[in-house]
This record gives sequence, structure tokens and C-alpha cells, in this order.
Amino acid sequence: MARDDRYLVGLIGSGIGSSMSPALHEREADRQGLRYFYQLIDLDSAGRGPASPGVDAAAPAGDVGALLAAARRLGFRGLNITHPAKQDVVQHLDVLAPEAAELGAVNTVLFEPGRTIGHNTDRYGFATGLARALPGVSTERVVLLGAGGAGAAVASALAAAGTRWLIVADVDPDRAGRLARTMAVHPGTTVEPVPLHAVPDRLATADGLVNATPIGMEGHPGTPIDPGHLHPGLWVADVIYRPLLTPLIRAAKERGCRIADGGGMVVHQAAASFQLFTGRRPDEERMFTDFRQLADLSQM
Amino acid sequence: MARDDRYLVGLIGSGIGSSMSPALHEREADRQGLRYFYQLIDLDSAGRGPASPGVDAAAPAGDVGALLAAARRLGFRGLNITHPAKQDVVQHLDVLAPEAAELGAVNTVLFEPGRTIGHNTDRYGFATGLARALPGVSTERVVLLGAGGAGAAVASALAAAGTRWLIVADVDPDRAGRLARTMAVHPGTTVEPVPLHAVPDRLATADGLVNATPIGMEGHPGTPIDPGHLHPGLWVADVIYRPLLTPLIRAAKERGCRIADGGGMVVHQAAASFQLFTGRRPDEERMFTDFRQLADLSQM
Repeated sequence: MARDDRYLVGLIGSGIGSSMSPALHEREADRQGLRYFYQLIDLDSAGRGPASPGVDAAAPAGDVGALLAAARRLGFRGLNITHPAKQDVVQHLDVLAPEAAELGAVNTVLFEPGRTIGHNTDRYGFATGLARALPGVSTERVVLLGAGGAGAAVASALAAAGTRWLIVADVDPDRAGRLARTMAVHPGTTVEPVPLHAVPDRLATADGLVNATPIGMEGHPGTPIDPGHLHPGLWVADVIYRPLLTPLIRAAKERGCRIADGGGMVVHQAAASFQLFTGRRPDEERMFTDFRQLADLSQM
Repeated sequence: MARDDRYLVGLIGSGIGSSMSPALHEREADRQGLRYFYQLIDLDSAGRGPASPGVDAAAPAGDVGALLAAARRLGFRGLNITHPAKQDVVQHLDVLAPEAAELGAVNTVLFEPGRTIGHNTDRYGFATGLARALPGVSTERVVLLGAGGAGAAVASALAAAGTRWLIVADVDPDRAGRLARTMAVHPGTTVEPVPLHAVPDRLATADGLVNATPIGMEGHPGTPIDPGHLHPGLWVADVIYRPLLTPLIRAAKERGCRIADGGGMVVHQAAASFQLFTGRRPDEERMFTDFRQLADLSQM
């Protein structure tokens, strides 16, 4: 194996102990004959155990900048970044790729000679996942629930996919308004922030609904809207992948909606990060098969 | 693969780009079904390229303490330490294993909850390598050239192996004297520091000769003594393994001496480090076979 075929990468975030990213990346790397190690670096964990008295604390828990510097110095090729550090990390980078600059959020950091670069593969992940699950579906009029980081990636992906009218609702109306303003870079897409109570009315004439709120995740039970407002003419997508069948996705299935669960986004963002880290094209079909297998295992 | 079967380890030192340690460790780990990544962390390299302006320098080049803290924070299981940091690293550790405390040098660091522990597997490496190459050989009277870190490990190994009389010579007579004093912990072994010019006389009555100086390494041509003083009754060992056949080992072979090249020490110190990192017993025979194959490859 050539020395170049070695990749040390990792993930920085909170509560990432059960992340599928190590398995998704490493299985693909193994097929490609790379030596690849995907290390989980939990922002919370350093605070838990006592520090080693002999070793000065280079990076206190939660200090993303210090963790980045440490990883760079130890020869990591790059890092994925997840909640709650996708925005915080930006101030520690030298350069942002265009999609990361637009979203103001980074989920992939590359260490290159003399500079550290931020990318965002979430937009690609959502767009590709939606196209895989619902090929050729109309995305002209879409309701988006949640205007945080995931919502911003979804909105940008939809704009690129040809959405003409995007209705955005968030429990925090200011956040919906802010997303609408940042989406001004996509003049072909009209973004309308609406209060949550206006959502049912908008759904009646929409092609699709995307959930980018945490509601439906483990620890966040329920559905982000009353499922009674779903109708068979609507496709429904969720960015949540743990569980894969959120209460919203289950309800949508029961009502005859076409559905796109969160699996596509997680697989395709991982695939795009893998390509950034290695410069090699991953086999996204095989990664998707891996994901289904891992998701089945985790539900046993 | 269980989450526990993952090991991120590394090596801190200068000029380690062609180290065999990654291959030795990773091949054994692969046979045991572990996910194992052995990262080279060169003390010189950070000074070479420009730092990334966006990322604060957590660990300037050569700062072993900062590198240890960074590796601990990022979840490394442990590190090997080599020239020139084996002594420097001690001040950054919480606990020393007995053999590391005796030698005042550490080549293996383990990160455990709440403490960082220093070990030294060089002594085991030399003792086991010598016993493999020259089983049952007499070690009663031995001449040791070089009283630095490697020499100290060799002296301690020989004392444990039953050496009654150890003659130590070094270009720096003070260093030979210091080693003799620290060897007082081995009352069964008399250590006699001698000037270099006294070595030929001592060789005439010795069982064995060990080279623990750098002479014979790549970049340090020649032999540490005039080969004319070697005689067929003498066994000759070298701690140098790059090249495996040093000028001293070649000359000893030609004169009918039994020989122990540096391969045994490097393999067995690596095996002992592997066991510390993983808690699993390595197959030292297979590691030795790997080493021979890697050494052949590197000489092509």
C-alpha cells in the first residue's frame, strides 16, 4: 500500500457515540483498498473523565478551534463537523467553499498545506437523496419545516433543483425570516416565511413537505405537524435518519404519500465527504446498501 | 467489529518517515481483525510547511508535551516515542512503569482514564532479540559500545540475562560513567566504564560485543571499533536495523563470529508495544517474518 493511501479522519460533535459515519466511510475505504480510520471526537467527552495531570490540556471540551489545531498537527486529513459546531467552526477556517459560504455552515473540513478549508456536503446529500427516493418528482412548490442549519441546506438544495415557491415555517419566526433573506442569492426561488399555524393551508396546494426540525428524532417524539393535514398528492421527506421511519414518515406512508426518509441525505453527504478526503469517487450505491444494513442492525 | 476493537496509535520522533513501525503494527492488527491505524507524527514536519492561519497552533514543532495532550484529547490509545524525545517525554507523564523509571526513558505511552503512563519496551526488545538470534549463548562478560538511551536498555537487559561483567565505552566518558552508576540497581552485574582505547584488550576475554552507538546507520558510515579486534569466540550484536547488515555485522560474519542484527530488537519492542496498546498477545514469529520481508523490500 502506498503511503498516500492512508487517511486519518474524524468527526467532531456532541453525542456522536452511535454515529454511522465510521462504518459508512470505512466500509467504502476498505473496498477501495485504502487504510482509513474514522475517529469520533465527542465535544462532551473531555469534560467527563478527569484530565491527565501530567498532560496539559491542549483542548478543553467544546473548544472546536483547539480540536482543529490538534487534528491538523497530528496529521488528520480532514474532519466532519456536526451539531452543535457547524457554525462555530467557520471562524477557525481559512477558506470556505461556495456552498459552505452560502449556508454559513461547514460539515467537512480539509487540512491542506498552509490552509484549512470548509465545505458543506449536506446540500448535495439532501438533493441526491431526494432524487434517489423520488426520481422526477415535482419540486415546484414545497413547504419546509425548520429554518436551522439542516433547513438552510434543504432550502438551497431545493432552489438548485428548481423549486419556485418555498414556504418556510419555524417555531422561531425570526429564524424563518432570516433564512428567507439569505435565500435571496437564489432569485428563481420565492421564499415565504409563514407562521406554523399557516402550514396546513399551504400544504393543500404544495407538491412536497420537508421536515428539517428535530421532531421525530430519538428523544424528540411526535410529528412536526398534525398528520391529518397530509394528503396523497404530497411527497414527504425527512432529514432525520435515526429512526429512519419517523412518526411523520410513517403517517405519510399510511396516507398514501410518496416518501423520502433521511437515509439518502446521510449516505450522500458521507459519500461527498469521502470524496473530498480521498480524492476518490465512492460507490454511492454500495454505501447506500451498507446504510440499509447498518440501519437494520441498529433497530434489532 | 466491536467499538473496542479500534485502535488509533502513533509514533512521535524526528526523521521517522521511513519507519517500519506502521507496517509492523498494522499487519499484526489486521491478522487479529482489529481496526488499527498507526500515525507518524514527525517532530520536524510542523516547522516545515506554513501553519494554517485560521487554526491556532496548538502544538509547535518539537513540543512533545503539546503533541501528547493533542493525541490524548483526540482519542489516541497511545504513542510510541523515539529519538530525540524518549527522555523529554518523561516530564509530561503521570506514572512510569518500573523499566521506564530505571532507564529514565520511555518509548511507549498509554493514555488511560485520568492518567498517562510511560513504558519502555526496548529492554524487552533487545533481550528477546538476542535470545532469538543466539539462543543459549554465554552473556557473562560483555562489551557494550555506547552509553546513551539504547545502551542503557541493552545494559539493563544484559543484567537481567545474567551478565556478571559489563564493560561500557562511549566517546563521552562521562556518559559511560553515568550509566555505570545507574546500573547500581543491578548488584549482580559489575559495570566497568572504560575509555575507547581499552576496548580491544577487553574484547580478547569477552563473550560478546554489543554496538549501541549510531555508527553503521545510514548517514553514519564505518564501524564503531576496528574489525581487526573481532575474534571467532565472540558473538556480536547491533541495535541498528537500518541497514540490517551494518559494516560491523558484516565484518563479524566474515571473522566467524555469531551475530545478532538489530532486527530482533525492533520487532520485539514493537510486539511489546502492540500488546500494551491492545491488551492482545501478538504473534511475534509472524511479526518477525513481516520484518524480514519489509527489510528485503526496503533494500531493493
